[in-house]
Amino acid sequence: MSEALRITRVDITPVAFKDPALLNAVGVHEPYALRAVIEVTTDQGITGLGETYADEGHLRRLRTAADAITGMDVHELGPMHRRIAQALGGDSGSDGHGLTGMITTSSTVDRVFSPFEVACLDIRGRAAGRPVCDLLGGAVRDRVPFSAYLFYKWAAHPGHEPDDWGAALTPEDIVAQARRMVREYGFTAIKLKGGVMPPEQEVEAVLALREAFPATPLRLDPNAAWTVETSLKVARDLEGVLEYLEDPTPGQEGMARVAREAAMPLATNMCVVAFDELPSAVRADAVQVVLSDHHYWGGLHRSKLLAGICDTFGLGLSMHSNSHLGISLAAMTHLAAATENLTYACDTHWPWKDPAEDVIVSGALGFHDGSVAVPRGPGLGVELDRDALARLHEQYLRCGLRNRDDTGYMRRLDPTYEKKTPRW
Amino acid sequence: MSEALRITRVDITPVAFKDPALLNAVGVHEPYALRAVIEVTTDQGITGLGETYADEGHLRRLRTAADAITGMDVHELGPMHRRIAQALGGDSGSDGHGLTGMITTSSTVDRVFSPFEVACLDIRGRAAGRPVCDLLGGAVRDRVPFSAYLFYKWAAHPGHEPDDWGAALTPEDIVAQARRMVREYGFTAIKLKGGVMPPEQEVEAVLALREAFPATPLRLDPNAAWTVETSLKVARDLEGVLEYLEDPTPGQEGMARVAREAAMPLATNMCVVAFDELPSAVRADAVQVVLSDHHYWGGLHRSKLLAGICDTFGLGLSMHSNSHLGISLAAMTHLAAATENLTYACDTHWPWKDPAEDVIVSGALGFHDGSVAVPRGPGLGVELDRDALARLHEQYLRCGLRNRDDTGYMRRLDPTYEKKTPRW
Repeated sequence: MSEALRITRVDITPVAFKDPALLNAVGVHEPYALRAVIEVTTDQGITGLGETYADEGHLRRLRTAADAITGMDVHELGPMHRRIAQALGGDSGSDGHGLTGMITTSSTVDRVFSPFEVACLDIRGRAAGRPVCDLLGGAVRDRVPFSAYLFYKWAAHPGHEPDDWGAALTPEDIVAQARRMVREYGFTAIKLKGGVMPPEQEVEAVLALREAFPATPLRLDPNAAWTVETSLKVARDLEGVLEYLEDPTPGQEGMARVAREAAMPLATNMCVVAFDELPSAVRADAVQVVLSDHHYWGGLHRSKLLAGICDTFGLGLSMHSNSHLGISLAAMTHLAAATENLTYACDTHWPWKDPAEDVIVSGALGFHDGSVAVPRGPGLGVELDRDALARLHEQYLRCGLRNRDDTGYMRRLDPTYEKKTPRW
Repeated sequence: MSEALRITRVDITPVAFKDPALLNAVGVHEPYALRAVIEVTTDQGITGLGETYADEGHLRRLRTAADAITGMDVHELGPMHRRIAQALGGDSGSDGHGLTGMITTSSTVDRVFSPFEVACLDIRGRAAGRPVCDLLGGAVRDRVPFSAYLFYKWAAHPGHEPDDWGAALTPEDIVAQARRMVREYGFTAIKLKGGVMPPEQEVEAVLALREAFPATPLRLDPNAAWTVETSLKVARDLEGVLEYLEDPTPGQEGMARVAREAAMPLATNMCVVAFDELPSAVRADAVQVVLSDHHYWGGLHRSKLLAGICDTFGLGLSMHSNSHLGISLAAMTHLAAATENLTYACDTHWPWKDPAEDVIVSGALGFHDGSVAVPRGPGLGVELDRDALARLHEQYLRCGLRNRDDTGYMRRLDPTYEKKTPRW
């Protein structure tokens, strides 16, 4: 018989890791990506890990939540969610980067709760000697396919050393980027982050990808950079080419208008990012694929709930990614392994991370044929590297960045830059 | 570190227990209620319990499923559901009693899977020393309220000894039955099974209950015995009196028509009994409260999924019951304890069961103030009484009943009886 597993201590460590100058619809990634590493320790001395965003408002809410759940048992996930909601008392915040859509009070609770839930599952898996996927209903696949995530990018951040991927500003550059990424990781699906170049050029890039990879599923995600009319034109130009078109235009109403005429399914991680946005989307048939992301859908169990809702209402399910470290990759892999209807290859920014920078002991997770083998060890199956954590925390302190702000960074570099949604 | 918990053996034992002559819209309960007791044993010698229906077709499907899952690990619930679906190969069956609505292939899989899932959770709870509710997200309440479940009834089955509840055929009888049930169990909500007497008489009975219990939530469930017009007349007559009106009329379309004009919420365990019936119900706003029941919604996790869907789509959630034994009462209690939005008192036929007849060691579950304390022991918190199991199995063999058939039994007693839906 195990004893209770009560939380005695929570450590929250913000870290920064190098990020290339990846372009998107609202600006450019800053030189460092920020994450917070969560360590939850129990009275039996077992520690579980979580990983989440590290914007200042989020860090403040994480600390409020950590205080609220100290003393609770790691099985009390429902009561924990409720207690965090109470502790936040309606304190909600928008995300600095503006890519995940309108953030409501309920989704703020979900994104604060998420890393603690993951850490509790890590603890329970370690205590029981079972991988986290076994606590989520068991693995339906032993490898999780991810997709190549292509970006338009600069060769370097101004004033920094170039990264080794080089610039990508033309269809040819994008194809070259895809070739390298597929060669190195074995990806069998490709996504292009769009909304950067005029739509005609992005259509051209996708058609070049199709020529280079005749049988590989392709996706384009302009992050709502287009009007309904532009979206419909692109949809016509890419009919038969795209696996899905992600967030061509802002808002469920606009998406529904595009969906009625577009031949391919529309996917979203912008107009359906919280449970209270699902009913209107279902009623309007605004999207055909929802991108889950345990970081904002409230952890692994609530992501399974989203999966069950998608299955019930005939929606496809894929997985969204922000820049992330190994703890999140492990959590994403366990979740995907246990989610039968997650039939699309998941997004990941993994290839854009310097392999030398992470907070976990290397070797637990690796890509082969575009997929990650589900760790079979207890819990998440990854171990914290305390020296690496200290180094990346030091980098966080030194880099000066405290909130993700792709638009602000772009405007510091180019004062004429304006954020416009839709832009074309 | 625990080892794998592999299923080495499954025992399925049909049992029969005495059931009073309870009347409903399609006939009368037979003298014995049938259930199947499932024992799942693992390589570590831990045995888990499940309880389900025992109609012949269902027993046959249970045995097919038991063979299919032998050798699997008790954490592999997703793969187990899939393997059972494959093993059944589309073999679906309607329920003999006709009270739970149209049964599709998918819900046949869910009802066959359910007792095995419950038994696997019992095993995992026993192995980890945790109550089952802790495997479902933790208890949000430590007591689960149930409702008094009133029935029109005969004093005895023809040719049998009378039970000690006596006949209930008039509003006064119903009030007397309610008074005794509330006195003995402390229930704080009351449900009347209707569809038996002409609607005016059932309205009269509900109004008599309202007078006798001015502040107690009241429900009426005629099991689709009425037309839309009759339903609307009853809804007007009982405006301000009913907490909800359950399945007044058949089908989602009819329910939607009633819902548009009725003042009280409509509940169902007939027109939404499987996940594939939810989308149309949501789109038509056919019902406002769904009755969960882990026996046909596919076990405890899938009942939690139903709860999450109801929460997301603004539907209320209650819980349905058939005649059941203590294993099911334990499972229902753990599920309800871990389901925050299950805010209605749950149905149970418990008071109609002879206290001397059960398959569990007595004492684990008891009613106080109309509610059952959530067992805090490992697993479901109940133990099998093998002598009692043998006695009730012997009774099953002796009684001759093999399929529930309320209508057939009524017609044997009264050859002029006709099943009509709707009747009024």
